[in-house]
Amino acid sequence: MNDVSQDATRQPPDPREQQLLQQVRASFDTCEDPRLRHLMSSLVAHLHSYISEVRLTRAEWLLAVDFMTSVGRVSDDRRREVFLLSDVLGASMQVVNVNDRSHPDATDTSVSGPHAVIDSPEFPLGGDLASGAAGVPCWVEGTVTDTDGRPVARARVDLWGAGRHEVCESPFAARRTVAAGHVLTDDTGRYAFWTVTPTPSTVPYDGPVGELLDAVGRSSTRAAHLHLMVTARHRRTLVTELFVAGDPFLATDPAFSVRASLVKPFEPQPPDAATPNGRDLSGGPWSRVRFDIVLAPAGA
Amino acid sequence: MNDVSQDATRQPPDPREQQLLQQVRASFDTCEDPRLRHLMSSLVAHLHSYISEVRLTRAEWLLAVDFMTSVGRVSDDRRREVFLLSDVLGASMQVVNVNDRSHPDATDTSVSGPHAVIDSPEFPLGGDLASGAAGVPCWVEGTVTDTDGRPVARARVDLWGAGRHEVCESPFAARRTVAAGHVLTDDTGRYAFWTVTPTPSTVPYDGPVGELLDAVGRSSTRAAHLHLMVTARHRRTLVTELFVAGDPFLATDPAFSVRASLVKPFEPQPPDAATPNGRDLSGGPWSRVRFDIVLAPAGA
Repeated sequence: MNDVSQDATRQPPDPREQQLLQQVRASFDTCEDPRLRHLMSSLVAHLHSYISEVRLTRAEWLLAVDFMTSVGRVSDDRRREVFLLSDVLGASMQVVNVNDRSHPDATDTSVSGPHAVIDSPEFPLGGDLASGAAGVPCWVEGTVTDTDGRPVARARVDLWGAGRHEVCESPFAARRTVAAGHVLTDDTGRYAFWTVTPTPSTVPYDGPVGELLDAVGRSSTRAAHLHLMVTARHRRTLVTELFVAGDPFLATDPAFSVRASLVKPFEPQPPDAATPNGRDLSGGPWSRVRFDIVLAPAGA
Repeated sequence: MNDVSQDATRQPPDPREQQLLQQVRASFDTCEDPRLRHLMSSLVAHLHSYISEVRLTRAEWLLAVDFMTSVGRVSDDRRREVFLLSDVLGASMQVVNVNDRSHPDATDTSVSGPHAVIDSPEFPLGGDLASGAAGVPCWVEGTVTDTDGRPVARARVDLWGAGRHEVCESPFAARRTVAAGHVLTDDTGRYAFWTVTPTPSTVPYDGPVGELLDAVGRSSTRAAHLHLMVTARHRRTLVTELFVAGDPFLATDPAFSVRASLVKPFEPQPPDAATPNGRDLSGGPWSRVRFDIVLAPAGA
């Protein structure tokens, strides 16, 4: 299972290579911060083991240097290419795994994405969080409970990323409004809001990370998703995503953030179906999804 | 000795983390280039093992993303910060180790540095390659032989980087002339030229890599060195560095490129000492060093 240690066992490193690694690790002995010392020492151990194991050529190394230069140079406040690289290497999701240990009874976590909106406006229950983003209206409802099944009142349910595909399809165009907002659960732990039905989107593919995905034959299309964050007193904050059952891009999501427990049916509604809270959609189509959320205790 | 495999053995990864890694590795199965597939699969294995082993926090991960963004953004054609990062992590030198396997009888290799000059002008034997760079004149002489001790005639001995400290001490100032040039050995394999005596220099320390060195308490001062490349028909090209015996910065060179075999005495000469080829230094001081070079057979 663990190919890294197998490689190390199979191929005893050249003494000169091993000696250099020891020298580099020792160079961090002067670091007074024990955590930083550990982070750097382990980093160079993996970096050097990698170079030795794959017998990295000079040309490949120069290519890697150029690649990382491009990734940084294309980045700015809106285009976060290093973040994207972390996503497509699965690193972002692994950091989620490491930090949000699964609680057997709580809702699973997922990545926050690069577009998290921290200070979103509050809407009344059943309000429209789409903020004018284009798409098929979607009614999202559910309950927020604790791991004993008790409702959590006044939990804050944050949504962002709906309509995000518009941004991603045209990364350098002027940004349109991306739906973001939050509601608070009622005394019975119930929440509901309108947004737009998520559709598959692409990660920015016109930069070095896009070239990498292309070179390895991987998809740049993210499965359709909504980003959610749920916060409540005495509960562990939940950052998660909600995916659409039947989406053909679930299996090849470039960010590896799809968990089966987070895939729910978004049920298309006939144009003439009455909306849950009487909203007038002028006879247009809409969809609905139920997503019941269970929060772990804080510190669990 | 191998802490990476020990860590992997000591701490069996969380099943969810292991499963994600397998999924990420499998995502490269579509890659039609077997070498790229191997490079990426091994890369993510090490990246994920690192994140799991050190239990990388979200804050540390965001710091790493920001750091790599800064490293790329500060880079341009003259400021090669990713290259520098590779140097200070010992990666550049490890790539040298991997690609230039030591030949028991040949001169050791070292890094080329970011300032290698490919198309340098030819000078006659004994010519002055300093090109006006400031410093104490230095006479460099020696022989180029093969591993059987036979002289190699018309070997090209390239020099660059003398006077480089002027560049490094002021990375954003206009570049001054950096001495670069080459001579050809005579029929007896002998070479000689003038340059300037190398002095300790700093790597650019006003960027993110400088901040890293500072944070871990490492020196940004490179040991004094000359860069040399020696090429000859039927011989393996040698890229190496020549260091100054007694230099206090040898042990803490941030690029880890110092090898004991490449440290030679640069002997200071009294101002009135006659120069080897009669050059008139107006009574100023100069130094001399002997560096005999042994080339491995091509393909060895």
